[in-house]
Amino acid sequence: MTVRIALDAMGGDHAPRETVHGAVLAAREFDVEIILVGRQPEIVAELAKHPDARISVVHADQVVDMHEHASDVVRAKKDSSIAVGLGLVSRGEAQAFVSAGNSGAVMAFSLFTLGRIKGIERPALGLIFGTPAGPCLLLDVGANVDCKPQYLLQFARMGSTYVEKVYGKKTPRVGLISTGEEDTKGNQLVQEAHRLLKDDHVNFVGNIEGKDLPTGLVDVVVCDGFTGNVMLKLSEGLGSLLVATLRKELNSNLLYKLAGLVLMPALRRAMKSFDYTEYGGVPLLGLNGVCIIGHGRSSARAIKNAIRAAKLAAEQQIVQSISEQV
Amino acid sequence: MTVRIALDAMGGDHAPRETVHGAVLAAREFDVEIILVGRQPEIVAELAKHPDARISVVHADQVVDMHEHASDVVRAKKDSSIAVGLGLVSRGEAQAFVSAGNSGAVMAFSLFTLGRIKGIERPALGLIFGTPAGPCLLLDVGANVDCKPQYLLQFARMGSTYVEKVYGKKTPRVGLISTGEEDTKGNQLVQEAHRLLKDDHVNFVGNIEGKDLPTGLVDVVVCDGFTGNVMLKLSEGLGSLLVATLRKELNSNLLYKLAGLVLMPALRRAMKSFDYTEYGGVPLLGLNGVCIIGHGRSSARAIKNAIRAAKLAAEQQIVQSISEQV
Repeated sequence: MTVRIALDAMGGDHAPRETVHGAVLAAREFDVEIILVGRQPEIVAELAKHPDARISVVHADQVVDMHEHASDVVRAKKDSSIAVGLGLVSRGEAQAFVSAGNSGAVMAFSLFTLGRIKGIERPALGLIFGTPAGPCLLLDVGANVDCKPQYLLQFARMGSTYVEKVYGKKTPRVGLISTGEEDTKGNQLVQEAHRLLKDDHVNFVGNIEGKDLPTGLVDVVVCDGFTGNVMLKLSEGLGSLLVATLRKELNSNLLYKLAGLVLMPALRRAMKSFDYTEYGGVPLLGLNGVCIIGHGRSSARAIKNAIRAAKLAAEQQIVQSISEQV
Repeated sequence: MTVRIALDAMGGDHAPRETVHGAVLAAREFDVEIILVGRQPEIVAELAKHPDARISVVHADQVVDMHEHASDVVRAKKDSSIAVGLGLVSRGEAQAFVSAGNSGAVMAFSLFTLGRIKGIERPALGLIFGTPAGPCLLLDVGANVDCKPQYLLQFARMGSTYVEKVYGKKTPRVGLISTGEEDTKGNQLVQEAHRLLKDDHVNFVGNIEGKDLPTGLVDVVVCDGFTGNVMLKLSEGLGSLLVATLRKELNSNLLYKLAGLVLMPALRRAMKSFDYTEYGGVPLLGLNGVCIIGHGRSSARAIKNAIRAAKLAAEQQIVQSISEQV
């Protein structure tokens, strides 16, 4: 059965241009049905640029701005593309929702509309990124800035299931971010979570440090949402700074410029550790429905990748698998 | 008056070779007197390689291993180079102590031997790193994995004083690591610390995100020791991975190799954001005495830079300045 995915056409800094374009690319490349949700006239105008695309449109009158507060939005924007799109999933008219819009609003609406899986106290945002050893899932990257030890245990279970089902990794290795490898290292939260993880059925390999994150030492990395968010943004910052400095250096003389042109493909490959768009989209795990959040700056390619992740998660019945695990 | 610095000759992965060499370099380059503390025969053998150096030696029978637990060491190793070196500072026979040894042991011994500055509840480890806008101090990077809001306020005051006195930066800008710029962003600890910082005399510019850390948006970055430690190690990990990937790429064909040779100086400069040895040494702030901790992997150059930082801190009477600020 072809998966139907509701895409928030209005979400993201470059919407609806990039969202519609991403939907078109995905519809061409994957076996998937896409429903674009948002202001019909704007979507139709964008779709006109891609006449061969077979994509349906569901109108939603309101748009959630990137800077609006989630708490204000949930009451005031029940006709937004986010609310309408999630409504399609909750009624079974779509099997997944994808948005590159206001992530706080998506989280708030999805909790309200889809609800939590039984046994999961807090849904978590999981970021998939590439490592030399394959994809790695880091969670939570910002949904829960204050965590209790059992939340981290639940993140580990959800993350293991996701990586196993969506990325085909058997018994994924789970690591807990801490300040050292020994059981006794880390803050109180981490020390208590360590004890819970050690006795659990997940394949917990122990504490890992920040330096192990990019190497692919483990398949699932668990931490509180504050730490995860800071790590994610630090990586982005270091990557941007490196690119900017390198660009300046390469433009400083002709010889460097020539050598830079020769080396560009190699430099690009080396920079992949900093590229979080590659796997596109961040699953919001723990909900009664598939919901993928894209980066606000998402390009058509990133939207396409987020749609692929949503399709895989829906096909692999990730919600049911997580319910069975917890 | 020439500053006298006690250096733990036995501390670090490459001690006493690199520590003695670093001391020799520092004694040649700066107006400073160095006392090497540790096993006299081993130190003398190393010093023999540098016959012109005027450096004194104080014998200490015991060596603290890098993997020993601080709590065990404080009772069992009162004759260690760390304990003896700190003793010199507490008795006024040296104005600063530098060690690249077991940082947990240095922290425990220094708290015990030197004591805290009045008004400082927890000493903090401050990492100085280079940014395009100049040196930036990040604290705490691991001394306090669980923090209360007022600790972060005290870190901000100590950090401001250090950057002003040691790096000559007038009214340093202080940022608080959070998950977003708005006052309401971050975990409970950060939200409460934000309120305290807003009402304080330090030049608090507000929350910053992980991405702002490497750019030099602020001069002092405040966070709990868990977050700081994770950020530090993540940066190191990303840097190492990048160097490894780049090296492999450059060796993959002759053209890349040649272009790489041409570009090497530019690549090295671009990589500086990841190089935490440049400013050498991490001050342990809040103690009644100057104490600088070097990286375990410290080279002679890193030791020399740590000695320079110790010299500056002692000359600027950093302990007195911090006491006056809090």
